[in-house]
Amino acid sequence: MTDPDATPVNAGWRERAHEVIFEADTPAGKAFDVVLLLLILGSILAVMLESVPEIGANATWRLWLRVAEWTFTGLFAFEYVLRLACVRRPWRYVLSFYGVVDLLAILPAPISLLFPGSQSFAVIRAIRLLRTFRVFKLAHFLSEATQLRRALVAGWPKIAVFLMTVLVMIVIVGSAMYVIEGEEAGFTSIPTSVYWAVVTITTVGYGDIAPQTPLGKAIASLMMIAGYALIVVPTGVLSAELARGVRKTPVNTQACPSCGAEGHASDAKFCHACGDKL
Amino acid sequence: MTDPDATPVNAGWRERAHEVIFEADTPAGKAFDVVLLLLILGSILAVMLESVPEIGANATWRLWLRVAEWTFTGLFAFEYVLRLACVRRPWRYVLSFYGVVDLLAILPAPISLLFPGSQSFAVIRAIRLLRTFRVFKLAHFLSEATQLRRALVAGWPKIAVFLMTVLVMIVIVGSAMYVIEGEEAGFTSIPTSVYWAVVTITTVGYGDIAPQTPLGKAIASLMMIAGYALIVVPTGVLSAELARGVRKTPVNTQACPSCGAEGHASDAKFCHACGDKL
Amino acid sequence: MTDPDATPVNAGWRERAHEVIFEADTPAGKAFDVVLLLLILGSILAVMLESVPEIGANATWRLWLRVAEWTFTGLFAFEYVLRLACVRRPWRYVLSFYGVVDLLAILPAPISLLFPGSQSFAVIRAIRLLRTFRVFKLAHFLSEATQLRRALVAGWPKIAVFLMTVLVMIVIVGSAMYVIEGEEAGFTSIPTSVYWAVVTITTVGYGDIAPQTPLGKAIASLMMIAGYALIVVPTGVLSAELARGVRKTPVNTQACPSCGAEGHASDAKFCHACGDKL
Amino acid sequence: MTDPDATPVNAGWRERAHEVIFEADTPAGKAFDVVLLLLILGSILAVMLESVPEIGANATWRLWLRVAEWTFTGLFAFEYVLRLACVRRPWRYVLSFYGVVDLLAILPAPISLLFPGSQSFAVIRAIRLLRTFRVFKLAHFLSEATQLRRALVAGWPKIAVFLMTVLVMIVIVGSAMYVIEGEEAGFTSIPTSVYWAVVTITTVGYGDIAPQTPLGKAIASLMMIAGYALIVVPTGVLSAELARGVRKTPVNTQACPSCGAEGHASDAKFCHACGDKL
Repeated sequence: MTDPDATPVNAGWRERAHEVIFEADTPAGKAFDVVLLLLILGSILAVMLESVPEIGANATWRLWLRVAEWTFTGLFAFEYVLRLACVRRPWRYVLSFYGVVDLLAILPAPISLLFPGSQSFAVIRAIRLLRTFRVFKLAHFLSEATQLRRALVAGWPKIAVFLMTVLVMIVIVGSAMYVIEGEEAGFTSIPTSVYWAVVTITTVGYGDIAPQTPLGKAIASLMMIAGYALIVVPTGVLSAELARGVRKTPVNTQACPSCGAEGHASDAKFCHACGDKL
Repeated sequence: MTDPDATPVNAGWRERAHEVIFEADTPAGKAFDVVLLLLILGSILAVMLESVPEIGANATWRLWLRVAEWTFTGLFAFEYVLRLACVRRPWRYVLSFYGVVDLLAILPAPISLLFPGSQSFAVIRAIRLLRTFRVFKLAHFLSEATQLRRALVAGWPKIAVFLMTVLVMIVIVGSAMYVIEGEEAGFTSIPTSVYWAVVTITTVGYGDIAPQTPLGKAIASLMMIAGYALIVVPTGVLSAELARGVRKTPVNTQACPSCGAEGHASDAKFCHACGDKL
Repeated sequence: MTDPDATPVNAGWRERAHEVIFEADTPAGKAFDVVLLLLILGSILAVMLESVPEIGANATWRLWLRVAEWTFTGLFAFEYVLRLACVRRPWRYVLSFYGVVDLLAILPAPISLLFPGSQSFAVIRAIRLLRTFRVFKLAHFLSEATQLRRALVAGWPKIAVFLMTVLVMIVIVGSAMYVIEGEEAGFTSIPTSVYWAVVTITTVGYGDIAPQTPLGKAIASLMMIAGYALIVVPTGVLSAELARGVRKTPVNTQACPSCGAEGHASDAKFCHACGDKL
Repeated sequence: MTDPDATPVNAGWRERAHEVIFEADTPAGKAFDVVLLLLILGSILAVMLESVPEIGANATWRLWLRVAEWTFTGLFAFEYVLRLACVRRPWRYVLSFYGVVDLLAILPAPISLLFPGSQSFAVIRAIRLLRTFRVFKLAHFLSEATQLRRALVAGWPKIAVFLMTVLVMIVIVGSAMYVIEGEEAGFTSIPTSVYWAVVTITTVGYGDIAPQTPLGKAIASLMMIAGYALIVVPTGVLSAELARGVRKTPVNTQACPSCGAEGHASDAKFCHACGDKL
């Protein structure tokens, strides 16, 4: 849709700004989102670099990074004010998920003046990256996410049974290992043992805590095999649900004009329930 | 079902108590299950906290946690007696899976008077959490679990072939590594080497035992790739079985009144076997 | 099938022995297989226990385990001779997969007289466990394995593309890490670096070798994400192939007597190609 | 196709060389590809062996490996010249993917004369292994890869949603752990913490960096469970897409000669849209 069509000349700067800032259909809107994406990535990079000891200790680097951080903060603050100005119901935006995230993206720099070290929270800007999904054909992505969410909702009870079983197993095996292994093997408390159980059943396996006794090793072995095999359950559930979703897609959404029957094949010409022409 | 309907006024307190304690359909039954769920979570938290050295060594904390533990035990004992009183065949309940778990939930506190340290077994109460599935639409969950169980039973032979192969591989590779690596690399006995093989094939990889010789590393590499790739088999099997189960669901359970044929499409109006109206 | 029916009285002991030893349909054959299964498990346990330093160093235990080992060897040798005696073409059995495994199950004990320490090879008896699949409804298992093999063969080209890509990636990244990280981080040679790449891409992650430089960590991160994500490919391929196999199962194997068309629905009464009665 | 048929006697050596070098249909072309495959594997093995300290330090071994390396380089250079000579548009080949890889396969040896140590780059020859897919029924493999690519493209938006979520989670949790854990636990900078987050969410778990504080362990546990569970999403997506691809395969590609309808069952004899004979 070209600009003049969508927003007539007398539409006011608010409508035009809204289209550029909140939509990604016009070239200007797309450019805005790409620039925003680059600014977010740049600001995350700056925060990351500043945390590296070799760079953070160097006075020149430190100065440049501070300048960059305040520039990014200024730009994000300007963007936030613009969004507030061109949106119809500002409070609704302020209290929305992205409104809160956009505000959190500005706060770290001023707060770090009061509490040194808190600038690391600036990486919360990474959440804003999710906003830039719009640049890559938003509508398409949203329908995909919807399909995924529907499959997850449909498969949720089976996945909940799976998660519940895993959690009960983690608590019981973790506590058993605390009794069996004791402190010398690193199982210093039940919470620590439960942490070990999570590390083991998810097959992460740091090795900072590891069983030493034969009985502990035997139980740990059973738990590893369980963790290795159990992931099969949610995978199978989601595959089956998504396959069902995929199967439904090509089905005709047309209803028979004579009898109202639905679920016709996508290329059906005659109703399979009453035989009348569709 | 409202209370008066289900249990007439002269039904006696046993029937009413049974409905509250064993069912989750009435508001009272639901409230009972939610309170029970919170009590179980609270008692598990108390046991966990007591095991943390910083908290267990503190006299004030210790006292409060002991009080909490005995309160939870008293409540669970009262619940156990109530269940015994309102159930028709008490012995059947006592010997059932949940009867045993409910008894085990009471024992740790009194036993810890005789054997200090045994209170850690109180985490076995976590198994009772499975009971509270009822609160979240039990019937629905049970049908899901049934569907899952059917898929697992249908896919079991293929999964057994997979597990058997993995176990034989673990024993043989574990023993071979004992011969190849020897004690200096941590492979001190065949059971230890088999434990290493389990840690490796499940991709946990603690690193407390790791091959040192070139041949050992080569065999370990092959085993890792096998473990990484083999999980594909049960996943595929369960996905296919669950997809079959999903596919069956929308099928009509109606049988043709003329010829008795089954398996009609969910919206079929005419029998596909004899052509008569359904 | 009862014994007298299958093998008439004058059938000779060979036929009867063959039925007991090689089949699992008669009660005697089943009992034989169960006893064999227990003997194999017992002999593996004996070899494992002997390798544990605390047990192997104890003279009494050692004596008993030696006696057990020679008893098992004697029984397996007797079984091997029996199999040789009652089979029609002994050489064919000797040279078959199971013939070789059965012989290897006897050799470790006599060989350990010449080369002390070689008794660990007795765990090769674990392969014999695969033989006892027969006890648990052999025919059923074999058909399942066939179905699995068909799915693997059908999906093999896709899985080969996947494995080839992973192997090329392992070799190239492994070598690159040798150049980047060098010896001080444990990457002492290209084969060692390739071993590290296998440990990383399969998500085992021992941690005995880990990158130290920023560039090495960045490359390792990319490789971990690749390994974490790539397993999706063979899983999806096998799921799809098995789902196809499952879908085929309920299809009618009947061909139309009039026109010879196949692929009718499992409950079809009329041919869908020519309309004649099936 | 026999040689004389494909390339008439007066076709010139170029055409014949092209068929041998670039195709794998004739016996000579197949033999050429197998020899090339062995040469590539041999040259990779030589580079690997040379990097092993025990072998690289031995003067005799070193000499032989240098000779082998230069022989392989000579053969690959000769092959490169041959390809250049017999291809119609040499520049197109030089700038193609395989043209660049073929050139990179020759360069390491001469470059190592100028910069000692750079011969490790010779393992880039591993990419050439992908070329030898041709030997194993190229056409078949390519169609499989196409099918896989189509499924990946179809499932890409869902997989992108998944990857984006994982990446945002890695950046935010990594930074949070830097603030929570600090330097003494190994979280020396945000990039290092992000590296730890990748190691953890992919379930690799080296253990060189591991959380020490209770809060850090709790967050790490949540992240492990997320990483363990999230892989379910792309697996399910690809399974469903591949299953759809598989389902499409048996469908008839014939269009009805009367009405042009498509999507008939593979054994259909009559059009399901107009009823005319196909």
